[in-house]
Amino acid sequence: MNSYGKAFRITTFGESHGAGIGVIIDGCPAGLTIDTDFIQQELNRRKPGQSRITTQRREKDEFQILSGVFEGKTQGTPIAMVIMNEDQRSHDYSHIAEQFRPSHADYTYQAKYGTRDYRGGGRSSARETAARVAAGAVAKLLLAQLGVKIEAYVSKVGKLALEKHYSELNIALAEENAVRCPDPETAQKMFDLIDATRKNGDSIGGIVTCVIKGTPVGWGEPVFDKLHAELGKAMLGINAVKGFEYGSGFEGASWYGSQHNDAFYTDEQGNVHTRTNYSGGIQGGISNGEDIYFNVAFKPVATIMQDQESIDLHGNVVTVTGKGRHDPCVVPRAVPIVESMAALVLADFYLRNRSARV
Amino acid sequence: MNSYGKAFRITTFGESHGAGIGVIIDGCPAGLTIDTDFIQQELNRRKPGQSRITTQRREKDEFQILSGVFEGKTQGTPIAMVIMNEDQRSHDYSHIAEQFRPSHADYTYQAKYGTRDYRGGGRSSARETAARVAAGAVAKLLLAQLGVKIEAYVSKVGKLALEKHYSELNIALAEENAVRCPDPETAQKMFDLIDATRKNGDSIGGIVTCVIKGTPVGWGEPVFDKLHAELGKAMLGINAVKGFEYGSGFEGASWYGSQHNDAFYTDEQGNVHTRTNYSGGIQGGISNGEDIYFNVAFKPVATIMQDQESIDLHGNVVTVTGKGRHDPCVVPRAVPIVESMAALVLADFYLRNRSARV
Amino acid sequence: MNSYGKAFRITTFGESHGAGIGVIIDGCPAGLTIDTDFIQQELNRRKPGQSRITTQRREKDEFQILSGVFEGKTQGTPIAMVIMNEDQRSHDYSHIAEQFRPSHADYTYQAKYGTRDYRGGGRSSARETAARVAAGAVAKLLLAQLGVKIEAYVSKVGKLALEKHYSELNIALAEENAVRCPDPETAQKMFDLIDATRKNGDSIGGIVTCVIKGTPVGWGEPVFDKLHAELGKAMLGINAVKGFEYGSGFEGASWYGSQHNDAFYTDEQGNVHTRTNYSGGIQGGISNGEDIYFNVAFKPVATIMQDQESIDLHGNVVTVTGKGRHDPCVVPRAVPIVESMAALVLADFYLRNRSARV
Amino acid sequence: MNSYGKAFRITTFGESHGAGIGVIIDGCPAGLTIDTDFIQQELNRRKPGQSRITTQRREKDEFQILSGVFEGKTQGTPIAMVIMNEDQRSHDYSHIAEQFRPSHADYTYQAKYGTRDYRGGGRSSARETAARVAAGAVAKLLLAQLGVKIEAYVSKVGKLALEKHYSELNIALAEENAVRCPDPETAQKMFDLIDATRKNGDSIGGIVTCVIKGTPVGWGEPVFDKLHAELGKAMLGINAVKGFEYGSGFEGASWYGSQHNDAFYTDEQGNVHTRTNYSGGIQGGISNGEDIYFNVAFKPVATIMQDQESIDLHGNVVTVTGKGRHDPCVVPRAVPIVESMAALVLADFYLRNRSARV
Repeated sequence: MNSYGKAFRITTFGESHGAGIGVIIDGCPAGLTIDTDFIQQELNRRKPGQSRITTQRREKDEFQILSGVFEGKTQGTPIAMVIMNEDQRSHDYSHIAEQFRPSHADYTYQAKYGTRDYRGGGRSSARETAARVAAGAVAKLLLAQLGVKIEAYVSKVGKLALEKHYSELNIALAEENAVRCPDPETAQKMFDLIDATRKNGDSIGGIVTCVIKGTPVGWGEPVFDKLHAELGKAMLGINAVKGFEYGSGFEGASWYGSQHNDAFYTDEQGNVHTRTNYSGGIQGGISNGEDIYFNVAFKPVATIMQDQESIDLHGNVVTVTGKGRHDPCVVPRAVPIVESMAALVLADFYLRNRSARV
Repeated sequence: MNSYGKAFRITTFGESHGAGIGVIIDGCPAGLTIDTDFIQQELNRRKPGQSRITTQRREKDEFQILSGVFEGKTQGTPIAMVIMNEDQRSHDYSHIAEQFRPSHADYTYQAKYGTRDYRGGGRSSARETAARVAAGAVAKLLLAQLGVKIEAYVSKVGKLALEKHYSELNIALAEENAVRCPDPETAQKMFDLIDATRKNGDSIGGIVTCVIKGTPVGWGEPVFDKLHAELGKAMLGINAVKGFEYGSGFEGASWYGSQHNDAFYTDEQGNVHTRTNYSGGIQGGISNGEDIYFNVAFKPVATIMQDQESIDLHGNVVTVTGKGRHDPCVVPRAVPIVESMAALVLADFYLRNRSARV
Repeated sequence: MNSYGKAFRITTFGESHGAGIGVIIDGCPAGLTIDTDFIQQELNRRKPGQSRITTQRREKDEFQILSGVFEGKTQGTPIAMVIMNEDQRSHDYSHIAEQFRPSHADYTYQAKYGTRDYRGGGRSSARETAARVAAGAVAKLLLAQLGVKIEAYVSKVGKLALEKHYSELNIALAEENAVRCPDPETAQKMFDLIDATRKNGDSIGGIVTCVIKGTPVGWGEPVFDKLHAELGKAMLGINAVKGFEYGSGFEGASWYGSQHNDAFYTDEQGNVHTRTNYSGGIQGGISNGEDIYFNVAFKPVATIMQDQESIDLHGNVVTVTGKGRHDPCVVPRAVPIVESMAALVLADFYLRNRSARV
Repeated sequence: MNSYGKAFRITTFGESHGAGIGVIIDGCPAGLTIDTDFIQQELNRRKPGQSRITTQRREKDEFQILSGVFEGKTQGTPIAMVIMNEDQRSHDYSHIAEQFRPSHADYTYQAKYGTRDYRGGGRSSARETAARVAAGAVAKLLLAQLGVKIEAYVSKVGKLALEKHYSELNIALAEENAVRCPDPETAQKMFDLIDATRKNGDSIGGIVTCVIKGTPVGWGEPVFDKLHAELGKAMLGINAVKGFEYGSGFEGASWYGSQHNDAFYTDEQGNVHTRTNYSGGIQGGISNGEDIYFNVAFKPVATIMQDQESIDLHGNVVTVTGKGRHDPCVVPRAVPIVESMAALVLADFYLRNRSARV
């Protein structure tokens, strides 16, 4: 199904080249002030055409609220937001109507549904994530009232890694360059690498790191719906994601318990903290008040400007030739998507946690 | 909530030292033959006390089916399975009733619920996973009818990694040693490392790799409920898991698209395959018929036999001293849990896929 | 939440005087041919201004499909349908911004949410049901392929009852008069009663009867999700509904078992039937292949053109004076809504039943 | 599926003659004191063998809590309760293994699942409702803290109706007779009618009325999940129920709006009330603070001690002869079941309403 969340639930709709895309937010509490400029600004962070290292498809990505907001405030009723598609150029894609592009969703959709909207990837296009960003912006507005702040940035492109811990960075600087890496020097190297890749008609993968500050203690649930399990599902649901790790992550699997355990202490204000934070702000699936941080691995985008071997609908061998507009590297535009999905996870647990006690 | 799955849905219950633990499976189709010996055998793979490198807690983990099976077959009605706790030894834990053990769930449960069953970790104990293994065994029986086979093994303990690709291994050999590593030589080294760690009163992390063969094309859903997103959530919901990656995983994030894309071809029988499988058997969130494989990172267990700094319920500084029985390394016993959760994910998508077409 | 259904799930949005209303259908199988003329025709059956006994609000209720349909067929992806509001006339309602209209939802919305869109009832307006009818039309198209036919009609207005059993009627005749009663003579009397009520500035209640033919055996689920329980919930979720009964209904509560039991027999084609059908086509919550029939009771609409005692937001006594446009009797326009909700219930169970057996 | 509720969710399991029946309550807030005597007392109100007008099957219906309660309080974790079956007498039912009893669920279960547990009706037996009563008792304990009181009683048996409005009755008197009718004189007549019916080997239907006092304003949700829609679904999910009406109900469908509307006023304490309460305490699907009241119609139980025409699994004509133990009239034992389901609905909305506002 096309919904995410239980208490703060979104349902998205729309294909890359259909009439429009959008989202319904169901369960947003009444009385939240909606800052439409902020929502548009978030959409702008994701939209195509921001620099020469992103796809040149042109979409204003202007959204319209159809319901749920009255006199600037949420009403407790469903908030529907729509973005009509403008620059559809369906003719760009007609040549692949019967071809299965390598490492795309063409074949699996066709096999599952017996049909598919082949225009620009249809439902499997990352265009759908604009709807998530619109919804995520509303979730961010809700979380901002609670002092929760979510910031993501690009920490790796190809083999080029930012070798600093998040605590050494001013993450806000990420928004000042096209790559969204908060270290200007590394950002420039990453930009050059992506640009060179683009010129080669190739694509390249990368990693986005996300840091969440100010999460109250108690969000998340035992057993299946652990906070990090939902974060993981939300991140793995983003197009092109291949891995998720939080806190000490894969590295932590090689440590001893005596190194890894985070000692508790009480600070001068009487607040509980841990001396280290290898737990990544989550223990037993529930937030402990420390920073939550995690990494999301993105594969190189499947669309490349090179000839590739493949088959068509009838099993015949074909050569897929790259056309259309694409991102040579998805991570710069993925930053607001990662933040949005994180915001949706947290907003959901915020509401669910209201039922924890009598 | 304590449920997993939409169409094939399980709900588990039980605390480490309560009267019993168990699971209800709701949505299992009618007419499936239930092999109770197989279920018990799966539980035995997870149960404590299998060797000197696992916890010495003694539980027979004998299960009883209370409903849903009649004359050896499922009836389409809920299948309830219960395991009564035997070796509870609550007195072992009384000394930690008011202490927060580092990197355990004590503090977050207390903060969230205002109360907690402190005996052996209560609901946060890995004892709960026995219920998942019982349910997973039923899911495996269902999948076996469809030719789907799930095998997991230990691929890393601490810094000691099995440096072979899964395709070079006879995974079945994993069951022949206490570590559950299919390479006998590496298994012995891992055993020694875990045993040494145990003698030091310490614990150590590790990685479990899982391989699924025979998944039909078409399982999984677009957008949020991608097959790998659900696998990720299911794995991250297992105690002590810090990371999940599938296919090329984190490594794939450093590649170029021209290296990473999996070319399609048609084999002599007319079946569609890919020449490489960096996609990990999943494209656009939907299975493509190739092997599905993924890695799950486990942190070192938090219980260690060493003195640790912490605080109590009242914020006072305390020294937590390790007592009780524990696993020095969780991955050998995690192997059947990983398989079980994978089986539950697949069984759910198997049923959900029945609604894909008119 | 604003969703109905598990496998065939709809989510509606929109307020009476907002920018637009609409619905997302999630879970509709791929490959269904969408007849947009039929959907519009269904919307026309519900739309205002059909005769002088319905509200004079003018809405064309033209819908637009934004997603999920490609080349005339469903794709297995969410189908979004939107109806933009045209004749909003918000000024008609400004005088009641702070008043609580008797037997409306004004007071309870205000108390629950601390805010409300007072224009034309906001979210509580029956205008929202247009979205249900659009979705119900898609469900009908799906069911039509399976030979399931749903027909409703007005069987009572005020104390004026149609004293014939559904089997004695040609239900199709209901569409030939403004009241939607299949007996022309009774229809005329009902029309006159409603028209007289309208002239008195009053409103009047009524009953809609619905008959479903051709439901395959096996739809519905034991225990909580019985077929009639879902039908009941779906009907009681329609504005102004006060009661639901199926089969023998409330009358059956006064009978003996020896009168009420439906004897089974096998017909000449070997099909199982019952000699009587007091069960209403449902036994143990599951369809048995006989006709499903039920009654839905609607109270008189709360908006009347008379002065009424009430209070305002601040607890002050006020006189509510009827203005705006309203239906003197809701049942004629409720007929397609009842059918639509029934179609949505059946479409959901049709898909859910696909998981009943191995 | 076998679950009810979203925030306060129960899942029941068990067949009439299986090893045991039970329920998991998921989502019960932590910190609720569990009075096990009260739960047992509620089970006793439902259990068989209370008088000569109920079935003579003997079950102590003693329940055991397996999880979720520690030191007398809920922990926010799943509460599992089990009742082991004792008096199973499977041999009583062997003669109907291949027969379809008229107006039972035998045929539909067989057709849906291709198999069925024929012993005592299997999953379709009203024995399953014991699990609902156990869960409902916990919900009642939660609601009692909020001042919500739920009382049901028998208002009709066959054609014998209690002709008094609930406000004229001392409902507590219902518990003082075997019929559970609060008017002693009518109760005696009802008892005699049921007893005569029993002697004739027949069964008879009836109506249960339920009154809920003290519901805070604001429970229930717009559109599909209206408070009365969920109450209706919950009641229609009880075995043998054929109809549900609340407030003015079916009678209200024959009124004018000028008669039916409930005028608002403010009492001396400044509380909002309505002068009449034809709305049944619910407006727009949301509680308005007035009494909630509704009627539930039960058909005569299908098991009668008379020969009946039917068919078997192979379509052959058979004569079903009544054996086993049964209730000649279900309504006296249905009273606690109606209350329990109402409590579950309210507990769910109580928690859901916590998310209504920022």
